[in-house]
This record gives sequence, structure tokens and C-alpha cells, in this order.
Amino acid sequence: MPKKNAFYAQSGGVTATINVTACAVIETARKFRSRIGKVYAGRDGIIGALTEDLIDTSKEPAGAIRALRHTPGGAFGSCRYKLKGLEESRAQYERLIEVFRAHDIGYFFYNGGNDSADTSYKVSQVAQKLGYPLACIGIPKTVDNDLALTDCCPGFGSVAKYVATSIREAGYDVASMARTSTRVFILEVMGRHAGWITAACGLAQEKEGDAPHVLLFPEIVFDQDKFLAKVDETVRRHGYCAIAVSEGVRWPDGKFLSESGLRDAFGHAQLGGVAPLLAQLVKDKLKQKYHWAVADYLQRSARHIASKTDALQSYAVGKAAVELAVKGRGGVMPIIVRKSSKPYRWTIGVADLKDVANAEKMMPRDFVTEDGFHITAKCRQYLEPLVAGEDYPPYRNGLPDYVRLRNVAVPKKLAGFKI
Amino acid sequence: MPKKNAFYAQSGGVTATINVTACAVIETARKFRSRIGKVYAGRDGIIGALTEDLIDTSKEPAGAIRALRHTPGGAFGSCRYKLKGLEESRAQYERLIEVFRAHDIGYFFYNGGNDSADTSYKVSQVAQKLGYPLACIGIPKTVDNDLALTDCCPGFGSVAKYVATSIREAGYDVASMARTSTRVFILEVMGRHAGWITAACGLAQEKEGDAPHVLLFPEIVFDQDKFLAKVDETVRRHGYCAIAVSEGVRWPDGKFLSESGLRDAFGHAQLGGVAPLLAQLVKDKLKQKYHWAVADYLQRSARHIASKTDALQSYAVGKAAVELAVKGRGGVMPIIVRKSSKPYRWTIGVADLKDVANAEKMMPRDFVTEDGFHITAKCRQYLEPLVAGEDYPPYRNGLPDYVRLRNVAVPKKLAGFKI
Repeated sequence: MPKKNAFYAQSGGVTATINVTACAVIETARKFRSRIGKVYAGRDGIIGALTEDLIDTSKEPAGAIRALRHTPGGAFGSCRYKLKGLEESRAQYERLIEVFRAHDIGYFFYNGGNDSADTSYKVSQVAQKLGYPLACIGIPKTVDNDLALTDCCPGFGSVAKYVATSIREAGYDVASMARTSTRVFILEVMGRHAGWITAACGLAQEKEGDAPHVLLFPEIVFDQDKFLAKVDETVRRHGYCAIAVSEGVRWPDGKFLSESGLRDAFGHAQLGGVAPLLAQLVKDKLKQKYHWAVADYLQRSARHIASKTDALQSYAVGKAAVELAVKGRGGVMPIIVRKSSKPYRWTIGVADLKDVANAEKMMPRDFVTEDGFHITAKCRQYLEPLVAGEDYPPYRNGLPDYVRLRNVAVPKKLAGFKI
Repeated sequence: MPKKNAFYAQSGGVTATINVTACAVIETARKFRSRIGKVYAGRDGIIGALTEDLIDTSKEPAGAIRALRHTPGGAFGSCRYKLKGLEESRAQYERLIEVFRAHDIGYFFYNGGNDSADTSYKVSQVAQKLGYPLACIGIPKTVDNDLALTDCCPGFGSVAKYVATSIREAGYDVASMARTSTRVFILEVMGRHAGWITAACGLAQEKEGDAPHVLLFPEIVFDQDKFLAKVDETVRRHGYCAIAVSEGVRWPDGKFLSESGLRDAFGHAQLGGVAPLLAQLVKDKLKQKYHWAVADYLQRSARHIASKTDALQSYAVGKAAVELAVKGRGGVMPIIVRKSSKPYRWTIGVADLKDVANAEKMMPRDFVTEDGFHITAKCRQYLEPLVAGEDYPPYRNGLPDYVRLRNVAVPKKLAGFKI
């Protein structure tokens, strides 16, 4: 294949290490100068391709690209924008090819989750149908760790390290205060469908009595009586109770706890916040003083406490994506393959995009204790290596020194396109 | 003075570095073996003294005491328990002296905020009146940074570093998502009366357009229209808006925003959470997608990102307290004295407890911009040195390796006492 430009875009919710992958894609592409011309990034993800709003990453100095390794967020912008089926959205798929053709793009790197794998797969099909040579490579990323085939998802290990550290620290705090003040602490974490992040909180408990004492997974239906009994027993036994709860925990009728009836003064339903709801329950039923925290974006942007394993893997998938592309592979995604847990050894494998696209990986039941409130040794063995190692960013004036790229636009060549 | 034992207790809300002070007190006392016998810690703060529930810190190996330097929470337990006036609570003050006499305690170290300084002062008065020789030393600690006389409070710098880092990181995240998803992000932080922690968030903004864009201080009355106009303008100009809000922000009628009318399905007032309330406001009035986080205990226990300056100062006040005591000083508190801001130079001074006891240090008006929504250069100059430097804990299995002491009880010598 003659020398072609590459397109790279970030998709969906960003992570603490998606920019590590961006760094790897750009640095590796720069090593293949005979095969890859420029790397154009989509501004705000795939929307940048549809609207021909491309960023010329060759305008960034090597030091700025290198600094992406320690910078959270999505350096080129991301988006929540899902291309639909091929028939329904044919014009959009064809527009992508038109933009790629106009900018001599022969490589398509799409960094995201399930939906992005699906999109990459469809783009590869359309390109083939239109006879346009395009190496389509998906690159895994998601804090939720729910992608199929890959052993773990780049981005997850760092959230895991953050939430486990946070609940351990808060546990030390609550334990100090329990005699006369707060006895129940609730930390709400992400993971609407899969309980991986909640499970990671469980790592903080090394022996009986350590925080967290109770985990509430989205995979386990919420049982109010059992929950209250467990909290009550924990407070009696250990003096306090630290709880980690997934934002996606549901009532037996399938409704999210977070949707269950909080109203503001005007009667509007209040959105979000399962932690305050549980806190209220603990106060009403158990008469215990509580505190609650909602980590929200803090957890997925906490580059300051990223996992070294995660940073290495996030780089490795980006590098592998480019290497696969220059070898002429397409319709694939580099994945993490675990070779052993103790000692932890992993390598990069390759999966077909179509196999990744339509699957979701939930927590196996045997990763959760029988009572549904904690993780098993098996789960711990799976999770532990993913949070291993520290990878601190540089600091300036006491705060992490993150980079902002110049994000210079590539001159447009086509007419506008309404998305 | 002949050799005497020492009593040390932690009071009120704990911090990421109060154990650094505990470490300093115990390590320094161990250096004065000819003057100080054992250091007894109060289990759960002053309650431990009242109930004669003392912890013998001499049972802890030097390594465990050393590990307090990097361990959050209160190693001996703290409490929210305020001794009242001398007349009202005479029995309690006399009980303290009785316990101290029974255990040959000649040094009283009380590590806390305003109330603790007040208690220390009163204990010193009672001891004097009863002719019991007791060196009473207050040691400053509070995340709120609202103690008088000391330039800053040990514990504050680490919260400041945590919240500034967190809002910077979340800002990078929101900036990535703003095109198609979240445009307004709200982080709720502590500081019910004084806005120092909120102000610290402002450090993350180094130039116009950086997060955070809006700070809401408890010292500035909340003006809904002005707030919404500011958020709207920020989103128009920068594409997104990151907000840090103190839990103590109030409506013009003096009520906390967090008390303003959220009800659960059963009509109970929902407690806490100014962030979700503001988020709802932003959604209703500006139709913007939002996310919110409540840092709660995570902020004050985040030893993993403690400020080095704070850790050094937390140690220095503990060391100075013991040195003052063996010099025969009493009724005093070691404080931080700033000698210059650039370069930052500080030293330890001494304040009279009675002067610290009844004052509260709010943010000066000239630390807040005229519009009330951000910090001034003067404030930045004050805050910047306090977050400087990193002081990472050791890690084991990917998580901070914090110590739990054995906390062996000292055998009781007295009859029980009902508190």
C-alpha cells in the first residue's frame, strides 16, 4: 500500500488513560514514515470525520504528544454519537469514506467501547463495498471494563485504583469518627450495567473488618431488608460500615434506585444520586449518622493516581493498532491477553471487530460472594494486577502538569455536511 | 519537673495529615526520655481521657509510629464532643485532672481546631486552680483553615491539593465531552463557614478558560440569576463550565442551599447535596446536560495526594508542641508563621490558646474577585505554597499501604465515669 494518512478518533466517555493510547498511535505512526503520512484526529470524535473537522497532529511538537501519556480527558474531544445500521445511516458511512478519500486517509483508528467497535466494523464493510482501501482498527477503551474478548479494558485499571484507594482512605476516616459521629459511609461509583468498578472497591478490604464492608453491584438485585440487616450487623461488629454502590443498582422491579422518587421543591424528579438515597434509608431505618460521596467524573479522570499496568496496556494497544494497520490488517482490534495472574503476565492479541461489537462482559457470578455483598478470592486475583504500579504525572506549582494541544485544523476540502 | 507521662488526643473531623502530627508528638517525646515517660493517647479523643480509656503508644514499634506519617484518618480515634463552660462542666474538667493524676500525666497535647484550643485553655485553668502541674499545649489541625493566628492550618494544604487536582482533572474530562454531552460539571467541597477549600479549587485555573470557571463561596450570598448568567456565558464562550461549590453556600435568607426543599418519595426532607441542587437548576433553567460530584470524606482523607508542605508543617507543629512542653510552656499552641510567599519561607511561632480559642478566620474579601465567582491573585499567592510538593505513601498490591496500630489499652485505675 502506498503512503497514506491516518485518522484517529476518541469515542464515548473518556478515561484517565485514553490519551496514553492517542500518544502511542501518534508516536508509533511517526516511526512508520514510509507508510503513514500524517495522523489526523477527529475533533470531538467521529463528528470530526463527518463534518471534516480534522486536527493535524503533525503540528504538535513531540514533547506535547509525549505529555499525552500523563494527561486525562480526551485531547481531541470525544462524543456520544452512535452511527446506526448500514441501511439507516448509509449517507453517513459514505460521507466518512468521502472525507477519508479527500484527505488521502488509508488508516482508520477508532478508540472506544462496544459501539465504537461496531462502527469500525461497519466502516470497514462500507469501505470494502465502495472499493476504498481502508485499514479499520478498533482500539479498546472503557472505564466500565465490559468489552468482550479483551481480558480487561484500558482505562479500567486506573479507575479501579482510584476507587479502591478512595474507599480505603474514607474507611480510615470513618473508623476514626464512628464513636460519636458518622458510622455509615457510602461511595457511589460508575458502572451502570457491569459491576467491575464496584468490585474494584472491594480490593481495599484485605481482612475482615476493613472497609469496604458492603458492595452493591448492578448485577445483584437490591434487597432493602437484606441490605439494612447487613449494614446494621456491620456497625454492631466493627463500629462503622463503609459501602460502595454502583450507580446502576436496581430495585426488584428493574427501576434504578437513583430514579426512585426524589423530588425537589417544585415536584420535579431529581436525577442521579443513589448514594444520597441509600444514606436517607440508613438514617430513617437504622438511625445512624451517615456521610456520602459521589465520585462521578473524578474517578475516570484521576490521572494523578493512574495504574501503571493500565498506562502500559493503554500504550500497548495504541502501538499494536498501528503495527497491525501497517501489516495490512483491518477489521480487527488489539486486545489484552492474560497469560498468568501470579506473576501477572500479559500480551497483546487480536480480535475480530465483529466479535467484539455485539457482546457485553458482565461480572461472572462466581466473582461475587454468595450473599451478594462482596468479591470472591477469584475476583480479587483477576483485579489485583490491574491496579498494580504507580505512574505519577509531573507536577507544577503543586498541581499535575497536564498538556493542552494546539489542535490546529486541517483545511477543509469538501462542502459541509449536516449531522 | 520530674519525668511525667504525656496525654495526646485527636479532636473533631480528621485530616489526611493529623497522624503526621501524632507521629511527630510520639517520636519527639521518645527523644526526651528523661522528661517524658509514656505517651498515652485518648481512644476516640477526649472521650478516652474522660472514660480513662487510654492507649499505650509505647506498645507500638517505631516502624508503626513512623508509618503514621503516611496514614490518613485518626489513628487513635477522634470525636465530636465539646466540653462546655467551666461552671457547667466542672465535673468533667475535674475528672480529666483525676485521670491525669492517676496516670502520672504532666503533659496534655490536644490536636484540633477552635473548640479544642478552647478546651485546652480551660483544662490548663482547671489544672492551675487545683494545683496540678500540667503543661497544656494545643496543636492546630483543621481542613477548613479557619483557625486564627496561624498562617494556615495543618491538614488544609492536602485537601487543597486534592480538590484543585480533582477539578482540574474533571475539567479536562468535561472539555472532551462538551460537544455532545455534559457541559456543566459541579464539584461540591467542604467548608461550611469559610471558603478556603473552595478557593483552593481556583488554583487549577491558570489562564482564562481553564476549569474551574465558577466558585461559590459560603462568604458570598448566592444570587441565582447572577449564577445562571455566569454559567450560561461560560458555556457560550468556552463550550463548558466547571463549578466548585462549598457545602455552606446560602440563599439570601440565610438558609443553606443544601436544605432547600428536596423531598424523597415519602415527603422526607433530603439532607445534603448542594451539587445536585445546582445541577437541577442548571438543567431546568439553562437546559444543559450536567454531571456532579460530592467529594465529602474523600477530600480530607486523600493521603495519596497530600501536600508535602502540609506534611512538613503537620510534623513541625507536633514536634514543636513537645519541645514547648519540655521547656515548661503551657496554655499555648505552636502555629505556622509565614515569612515570605515567593520564595515560600515559614517558621513555627507560638500563640496563646486563649487568643486562638474564640476566633474564626474567614476568607478576606480581597481574596475573592469583585463578581464573587473566583479568587484574586492575592489569594493565589497565599494558597500556592500550601499545595506545593508531593509526599506519596508507599504502595502494596497497587494500593496505599496504611498502618493500623494495635492500640493497646492502659489498665484502668479509677472507677467508671458516665459522659
